[in-house]
Amino acid sequence: MSRHSTPSADPRFDEHASDRGQTVEQDRDKPEDGRRRVYIQGIAPEIDAGQYPAKRILGDQLTVSVDLVADGHDVLAGQLWVRPPPGNPSAGSAPREVAYPLLASVNDRYSASCELNAIGRWHYSFEAWVDAFATWRGGLEKKLAAEQDVNVDLLVGAELLGAAAERATGQDRDALSAARAQLSDVAEPLAARAQLALRPELLALMGRHPDRAHATRHARWLPLWVDRERARFSAWYELFPRSTGEPGQHGTFRSTLARLPYVASMGFDVLYLPPVHPIGHTFRKGKNNSPNATESDVGSPWAIGSAEGGHKSVHPALGSLEDFRALAAEAGRHGLELALDIALQVTPDHPYVKEHPEWFKRRPDGSIQYAENPPKKYQDIYPFDFECDAWWSLWLELKSIFEFWVTQGVRIFRVDNPHTKSLPFWQWCIAELTRDNPDLIFLAEAFTRPKLMYLLAKLGFTQSYTYFTWRNTGRELREYLEELTTPPVREFFRPNFWPTTPDILPEHLQHAGRAAFSLRLVLAATLSSNYGVYGPAFELMDNVPRPGVEEYLDNEKYELKSWAPDRPDTLKPLIARINAIRKNNRALQHNLIAFHPTDNELLLCFSKQAPDEQNAVLVIINLDVHHAQAGWVDLDLPTESGALARPARPPELGQSGLQLHDLLSDARYSSQERRLFVRLDPQSAPAHIFLLRRRARTEHDFDYFV
Amino acid sequence: MSRHSTPSADPRFDEHASDRGQTVEQDRDKPEDGRRRVYIQGIAPEIDAGQYPAKRILGDQLTVSVDLVADGHDVLAGQLWVRPPPGNPSAGSAPREVAYPLLASVNDRYSASCELNAIGRWHYSFEAWVDAFATWRGGLEKKLAAEQDVNVDLLVGAELLGAAAERATGQDRDALSAARAQLSDVAEPLAARAQLALRPELLALMGRHPDRAHATRHARWLPLWVDRERARFSAWYELFPRSTGEPGQHGTFRSTLARLPYVASMGFDVLYLPPVHPIGHTFRKGKNNSPNATESDVGSPWAIGSAEGGHKSVHPALGSLEDFRALAAEAGRHGLELALDIALQVTPDHPYVKEHPEWFKRRPDGSIQYAENPPKKYQDIYPFDFECDAWWSLWLELKSIFEFWVTQGVRIFRVDNPHTKSLPFWQWCIAELTRDNPDLIFLAEAFTRPKLMYLLAKLGFTQSYTYFTWRNTGRELREYLEELTTPPVREFFRPNFWPTTPDILPEHLQHAGRAAFSLRLVLAATLSSNYGVYGPAFELMDNVPRPGVEEYLDNEKYELKSWAPDRPDTLKPLIARINAIRKNNRALQHNLIAFHPTDNELLLCFSKQAPDEQNAVLVIINLDVHHAQAGWVDLDLPTESGALARPARPPELGQSGLQLHDLLSDARYSSQERRLFVRLDPQSAPAHIFLLRRRARTEHDFDYFV
Repeated sequence: MSRHSTPSADPRFDEHASDRGQTVEQDRDKPEDGRRRVYIQGIAPEIDAGQYPAKRILGDQLTVSVDLVADGHDVLAGQLWVRPPPGNPSAGSAPREVAYPLLASVNDRYSASCELNAIGRWHYSFEAWVDAFATWRGGLEKKLAAEQDVNVDLLVGAELLGAAAERATGQDRDALSAARAQLSDVAEPLAARAQLALRPELLALMGRHPDRAHATRHARWLPLWVDRERARFSAWYELFPRSTGEPGQHGTFRSTLARLPYVASMGFDVLYLPPVHPIGHTFRKGKNNSPNATESDVGSPWAIGSAEGGHKSVHPALGSLEDFRALAAEAGRHGLELALDIALQVTPDHPYVKEHPEWFKRRPDGSIQYAENPPKKYQDIYPFDFECDAWWSLWLELKSIFEFWVTQGVRIFRVDNPHTKSLPFWQWCIAELTRDNPDLIFLAEAFTRPKLMYLLAKLGFTQSYTYFTWRNTGRELREYLEELTTPPVREFFRPNFWPTTPDILPEHLQHAGRAAFSLRLVLAATLSSNYGVYGPAFELMDNVPRPGVEEYLDNEKYELKSWAPDRPDTLKPLIARINAIRKNNRALQHNLIAFHPTDNELLLCFSKQAPDEQNAVLVIINLDVHHAQAGWVDLDLPTESGALARPARPPELGQSGLQLHDLLSDARYSSQERRLFVRLDPQSAPAHIFLLRRRARTEHDFDYFV
Repeated sequence: MSRHSTPSADPRFDEHASDRGQTVEQDRDKPEDGRRRVYIQGIAPEIDAGQYPAKRILGDQLTVSVDLVADGHDVLAGQLWVRPPPGNPSAGSAPREVAYPLLASVNDRYSASCELNAIGRWHYSFEAWVDAFATWRGGLEKKLAAEQDVNVDLLVGAELLGAAAERATGQDRDALSAARAQLSDVAEPLAARAQLALRPELLALMGRHPDRAHATRHARWLPLWVDRERARFSAWYELFPRSTGEPGQHGTFRSTLARLPYVASMGFDVLYLPPVHPIGHTFRKGKNNSPNATESDVGSPWAIGSAEGGHKSVHPALGSLEDFRALAAEAGRHGLELALDIALQVTPDHPYVKEHPEWFKRRPDGSIQYAENPPKKYQDIYPFDFECDAWWSLWLELKSIFEFWVTQGVRIFRVDNPHTKSLPFWQWCIAELTRDNPDLIFLAEAFTRPKLMYLLAKLGFTQSYTYFTWRNTGRELREYLEELTTPPVREFFRPNFWPTTPDILPEHLQHAGRAAFSLRLVLAATLSSNYGVYGPAFELMDNVPRPGVEEYLDNEKYELKSWAPDRPDTLKPLIARINAIRKNNRALQHNLIAFHPTDNELLLCFSKQAPDEQNAVLVIINLDVHHAQAGWVDLDLPTESGALARPARPPELGQSGLQLHDLLSDARYSSQERRLFVRLDPQSAPAHIFLLRRRARTEHDFDYFV
C-alpha cells in the first residue's frame, strides 16, 4: 500500500477520445506523451461506464479487476487507486487517496482488493505501467539458464537500479545505490553479481520505486457506494399504527408501543409504518376503496394532507410528533428500526395546494389536474407537476420532507411509487440526503417495468420491491434469482422480497391457506437477504380477496382493523424460527446463491454461502402446497452456473462425509453421497433448511464448514 | 428525417457525472434543467463506452438501439443523431447532422436506422423526450372508449396544438393553428372535435414539431468507422516476387507481371507482397534460418535496410519504383489490388541506424540493442525504441513510410507483428492516415494474446489474422466462430482466415496431403468472408516441414523458390471454383453464421445468409481427411444461438419443399424435410456448399430463396 501522487486524466483516454478525428486540429495534435504503452480495459465492477456507483457494504472487501494490455511481452504493473469518502463534507478538503497493487491472474487480467471501512461515496481508479526491472530480470533468468554471457545485461540492470535510487529516499535509496554498484562492478565475479540481481528482496525493493513516468492513468474516477449492513440484511414488518387500538378505536403511536414486544419477538429488525400524516377529506375513499366515504370512514394514509397539515405533520388521531419520537426511541430499544413511508402526492386539502399552486398542473377550466390513468380517475390525489417552471423550489421542498423526518429519528424510508415521480429528482435528492447522512436507507416501492426498476436502483435507491410476489414455479424463481444475483444487476440492485403487501394479495395465497403462507415465507426469507411481511395480516394468514382481484377484502388501507395477534394458529412461531436462523447463519445474509438440480420440478433446491465460505446453508423447498413431494437432489452444480457456483458450492465431502443439520426441525442427517433423497409434506414442513457441516477427523466433533 | 439543432451535452450525463458528490459545491448545484425526465441507456453498438468506433461497410444500414426510460407511463419519443464524415477535412467546417426517429420495440427498447453512404469516420448520438401530445392522445382514446366527458381534455389538446404551432412555420403552422381552433371551439359538437383530435394526420403533423424543451441529450458522440466493401469481403493471395523468375534467377516486379493472369484466374482480389525493400547483410540469415549465410544467400525480406536504402526504397534486384508502380497498375487491370507488407524494424545496415541513432536503445557497452526474446537472439534485427525521448520524430517518420507507399499506389497494408510495436502509435498513425485516405485497409499480422489482438482491432486495424490456423475440430471451429461473430467482438474485429503462411505450416497439414489442403481451403473461404492463401506453396500443397516445427522446410523466406504453378495436380481449379462461389453468393461475403446440429461430430454444418435475406448458403464439411463420413444434419437451429439464428436460418419449407443446389458439384437435391442425410468422401469432395432455394409455385421454375 503506497501513497503516490493522484492519477490525473490521460489525454489518450480523455472524455473526448471518442470525438478525435472530427476536426483536423485535434487529430494532428501530438499526444501529451506517446510512451504510455499500457491500456486499461474491462473494468469490473463498472456500471454504465462509471455513470452510476456499484454498491457494497461496510466491511466488505472491494475486489476490482481490469485487463492491462500492452505491446510485446513486457511485465506490466499497476495499482488500484481508492478514494475513501471525505471525512467531513463541509470541510471540502481533497480526500486522501490510497494505492493497492494490481496482481496478475490469467489472460491479461489483474485485480486488487481493499477493505471498505467507511460508509458513503467512495471512488476508485487505475494506473498501470511497464515494469522494466521485472522484465529485465525475467530475461536475465532465461539467459543464465541458457548459459549466455550476461555481462552487459548486468550493466543494464545496474542502470535501472541507479534510476530507481534517484526516485527513492533513505534506506531504500542507499540499498538501491549499493546494488547498482555491485551489479556494475566488473571486478566482481559474474555469478555473484547475477545472484544478487535475482534476489527477491531486490525485486521487492524495486517494486516500491517503480518508474511511473510513462504510466497510463484511467481517465475517470469510478463511484462506489458503501452502505451499512442493514442495506443488505434486513427483515421488515409493516404495521398500521391506527389498527393497534382497542376494537373500534383509532390506534395511536402510544398504542403501537404495546405492539413492539410482539414484533420484536418474531425477530424482525425494521418496523415499517405507512404514512402517518393528516388524511384528506375531499373525495376521501370509503371502505373497499368505495368512492363514497361516510363520516366514519378514516380514509387512506396515502391520501396525504388536510387543514391539519401535510407531509411534515402527524395525524392528530395518531398523537403528536413527540409521541412519534417516543415510538421511534422505544422501537430502537427493542432492536427495531422505524421505517417511514414517504408518498410524494397530496390531496386537494393539502396546504401545498393553496400555498404553492405553481407546483401543480392547472387545466384549461382552471381546475387542478388530479391523478389519472385513463380511464381511471383518482380525484382525491393531486400529483406534483415535475415539469412546472417552479421545479427547483419543488425539489428543495420535497427534499426537506425527508430532512424533517431525519430530525425526528427516521433513518429508513420506504418510498411510495417512486417510478411515478421524476427520476432526475431522485438522483439529485438521494445524493444530497446521503452525502450528509450516508446511513440512510431508501426502499423503492416500484412495481413497474424492469428497466425502470433497475434505473431507480442505479439512481440511488438502496433496496427495491421485486416481482417475487408473482414468481411461483421453480423455473420462475430460479431464473429471476439468477437475473438478480448476476452482474451487472447484483452490483446495484438489492431485492427485498414481500409475500404480500396491503396492495397485493396474490392469487396463489387466496385459496391454499397455511401451507401457502408458510411456503411464501420460507421462499422470501431464504432466497433474499432482505424480506418483509405485512402484518398481522400475514402471520394470521388473511387470504380473503375482493372478488376477482389480487387485493384484500376490507382492505386495511381504507378502514381500521382489529387483529388478534395471539390467535393460536398464528405463523408467529415459524416466522420467529426463520428469522433466528437468518440471524445465526451469515449465508442467508447474502445472496450468493446456486441452484441445484432435482428430479422433481416441484422441489426447489439451492445453497447459499457466506463470502468467507465459513457458513453454508442448503435449502430444499416443496413448491406444492397440497401434496407431499419426494425426489433426488444433486448437490453438484451444473457447470453453466459457473458464475454462481463457486461462492455457494457446498463443502467438499470429507472422507467421512457431510452432515446436514435441519435448522427447522433440528434433525441431523449424515451423507456420504452428493445426491440426497428428500420427501416434504406441506402439512408438516414446507422445507428443509440444512446447515452444512463437514464431519471433522474426530467422530464426535462437528466443526463449521471450512 | 428532420434537421433540428445539434444535441449538446446534458449536464446530468456530463463526463464528470461519476464524480458528483466528491465536493459539496458540485452536488449542491442546481441542475441546469431538472425537467429532463428521459434517461438514455444500453446503447448498441457501443465499444467501451464509445472510446473506440464500431465498424461498418459502405452501403450498410446502421441500426442503433437504446433504452429510453422515464418515470410513469408517458409516451416517449427520440431521435438518433448522425454526423457523417466531414466532406473535406482541411475545410474544417462543422459537419452536417441528420436526425432519424427512434422507433419503439419492446421492453423500453428503441431503435433507428440510417444508410451509410460514405466511408470514413461517422459519429452518432441521441436525444429523447416525453411526447406530451401522443400521451394525451392515448388518454383521450381510452376516455372516449369509456364514454367519459372529454370536453376539458380537448381544450388541453388545443393548448398542445397551439404551442406546436408556435414552433412550426408555413403550412404546418397554419394546419396546427386551425386544428387548435377547431378543438377549442366549444360550439362544435364534441364528437366531431374528438374525431379530429384522433386523426393520424394530426399525430404525424405534431410529430414534426415536438416539444424538445426538456429533451435529454446523450453526453457524447459515439464514433463509427465505415470502410469500403473490401474490408469485409476479400480473397488474398501472398506471393514472393523474387520467386517468379526463371529457375535460379532472382525474380523481379516485371517477372511478377507474368504471374498476374494466373493469380487472377483463381479469382483472388488482393495480391499481397512481402517487404520489397533492400535486405541487410549484417547477421543475414541463410537457408532454413541458418545463422551463417553464404554470399549466394538472398536473406529475409523482413530484414529491412542496407546501404541501398530502407523502407522507402525497393530492392534493386526487384527493379525500380517505376517497375513497382507498373506492377500495381497492371494488377489493377486484372482485378487485383496490391497489398504491401510493412515491417517496422531494421537491420544494422539500415540508413536509420546511422541517421537516427536516437530511435534505438543503446546498451551500456555502446552497442545497439538487437531484438531478443530470451534466450533467443535476433542480431540481424534492431527494434525501434518507442520509449525513446525522440518518440515523436520516430512516429512522424514511421507514418511517412505508409504515406510514401500510398503515393506509389498502395491502398492495402499488411502490417508485420503490430503487437510488438507501441499501441498508442498505431492508434494515432492509423487515425491520421485514414482521415485523409479513408479507403486504406490495414491487416494486422498479430498471432498473440486474445485481448491484445482485439485491442489492435479497436485501435484501428481493419482486418486481423486469427487462431483459425490452429482450430481443427468441429467444436473448436464452432466456438471460435461464435466468439468472433457475436457482439461486441463482431462490432470491431474482422477476421481474415489463413490456412498457412510463410511462417506457419500447421501440423495438421504436414501429413494428410490434398484432402487436408482442400478441407482447410473450404473452411477458410466459407467460414470467413475474408481469407487468404500463401501461394504457390498452398495450391501446390507443399507440406514438408522442418523436422519438429510447424514451419516449411527450405522456407521461401530465406531463399528463392522455383514453383511449377501448372502442375496437373494443383488445387487451382478448386480454388477458382470456391472464389467464384464466394463472388456469386453474398451470403459468403458476410459472417452472419449459424451452426446446425449434426449427429456426427466429424461433420461440420453451418448456414450463412446475406443481411437482406435474399441469399442463403448451407455448408456441410467432412472434417475427417482420411475417411468418408455420413450422418444426419438438422436444419432447425438450437434456440440458444438466438443471436445468430435469424439472419442465417434457412428458408421456411414451402409446401413443395426446399431445393439444395451444390455449387461445388452442381448437383441439385430436393427435400421436404428439415433433416438431411449426407455422406462426404474426402477423396472426392471435402464439402457440400448448397445454395438454398425454395421451390416456387410452378413445378419447373426455381426462384432464389426469399
